[in-house]
Amino acid sequence: MPITAADIQLAQRLADAAGAAIRPYFRAEHGVELKDDHSPVTRADREAEAAMRRLLDAEAPGDGVIGEEYGTKPGVTGRQWVLDPIDGTRSFTVGRAIFGTLIALVEDGWPLLGIIDQPVQRERWLGVAGRPTTFNGKPARTRSCAQLEGAVLATTSPHLFAQDDVPHYMALVAAASGGHTRQGPVYGGDCYNYGLLASGHLDIVAESGLQLYDFAALVPVVEGAGGRMCDWNGDPLTADSAGHVLAIGDPARTDDVLEAIRATVDGHDH
Amino acid sequence: MPITAADIQLAQRLADAAGAAIRPYFRAEHGVELKDDHSPVTRADREAEAAMRRLLDAEAPGDGVIGEEYGTKPGVTGRQWVLDPIDGTRSFTVGRAIFGTLIALVEDGWPLLGIIDQPVQRERWLGVAGRPTTFNGKPARTRSCAQLEGAVLATTSPHLFAQDDVPHYMALVAAASGGHTRQGPVYGGDCYNYGLLASGHLDIVAESGLQLYDFAALVPVVEGAGGRMCDWNGDPLTADSAGHVLAIGDPARTDDVLEAIRATVDGHDH
Repeated sequence: MPITAADIQLAQRLADAAGAAIRPYFRAEHGVELKDDHSPVTRADREAEAAMRRLLDAEAPGDGVIGEEYGTKPGVTGRQWVLDPIDGTRSFTVGRAIFGTLIALVEDGWPLLGIIDQPVQRERWLGVAGRPTTFNGKPARTRSCAQLEGAVLATTSPHLFAQDDVPHYMALVAAASGGHTRQGPVYGGDCYNYGLLASGHLDIVAESGLQLYDFAALVPVVEGAGGRMCDWNGDPLTADSAGHVLAIGDPARTDDVLEAIRATVDGHDH
Repeated sequence: MPITAADIQLAQRLADAAGAAIRPYFRAEHGVELKDDHSPVTRADREAEAAMRRLLDAEAPGDGVIGEEYGTKPGVTGRQWVLDPIDGTRSFTVGRAIFGTLIALVEDGWPLLGIIDQPVQRERWLGVAGRPTTFNGKPARTRSCAQLEGAVLATTSPHLFAQDDVPHYMALVAAASGGHTRQGPVYGGDCYNYGLLASGHLDIVAESGLQLYDFAALVPVVEGAGGRMCDWNGDPLTADSAGHVLAIGDPARTDDVLEAIRATVDGHDH
């Protein structure tokens, strides 16, 4: 079932509802709690997901829902809304407005609609399969990238890679930076980096350990802007990709990126 | 000569002038050039510093000026304005509004006034020796931090540490995170992290390789908010500190931080 204007409108309303729940907690006293895995979770996170679920229960009761905070609700339509109320909780908790709300509409396992919403700066990327991605309503395009050396690479934190991934990540860093430390990766940013890539401000994002709710919304945004999303083998992202995610603004660089990340470099040699 | 209301007003006008020069270039097509050391420098950077220097030539012609882009102008008053038009050029070039303009007024080598200004989000921290730091005109205070384990640590990039500094930095990371990867440091942010520390949103910033124009403005902001700025030995920051900078929101944690960073941990063991 293709994405309709009503689907897009509902997705926008979900983002509006999440933003309204999140904004009052930004830089406010908001008791950070710790889950068993010690990731920070805030009341904003839970209230934003609850607000989105209420809207979905009312407007699309047959659709399934997968959320980071409240788990999975099975549906009957074959469509699922995948929600991450605050991607970049750590940026949120330290008061940096470079986190985002992620909303995806997935059908038969394939994300057909994605939103990256930054509620404090009021910035929204909207991607719909087969349509141009928009940023605050205006078309967004990735930029061309003539060669891998000099490409601007972003990732949230080097500590989020599994031990076995680090030498591959460092090989990509070395290839992109050409050995110049000051041209090293841009750190921090979570989903926001993918939006900036879609708008042509950076070239590559490489991450691992991402869950479905972390990347489903990113795919339509990046691909509708002319970029490429794949796993570290160049295959399409699925829930089984083990979270090895690549976003490449200029698809012509895909082979260069995959070749670089297949190599290994000792992290101590950078 | 103590800081006067006229000094503060001039500093604010410098920040206004820099912001006006910078904003049109944010996320615009703005041909990034590369200096010999391959650090990105933009027209925004140079135009902002030129605008500030014009204002200083007109309003404080006897004061010295040290700027990142246009070098040193000797003065006759014993006072120097230390300017970094865009600290966090890399964040600027990828479209993240977490860079800042740094303005310091230094007398006898001691920074008596500092501004951290984020011109896109229109956020400004102002620190004056002996007075409470303000954020957009309202008092800013660091937060208390009961113990080092669990403290939120920020730094711009792990790749900016010299090889010999890495094991010490990783020891501090290990002590603060308690070994929980998801509680690892917050990356990216440059001067903006020091502002967030002054406002009580994070606990520690650790960096090395900072120049005088990178840290002079930070000292009055952090200390006027109740925090502590020192080098990695706990000594006051000088131009000879080799850029080993620590900002500690709760001064009661200073000894814990210094003890942790004196130890060493192999970066591969994180």
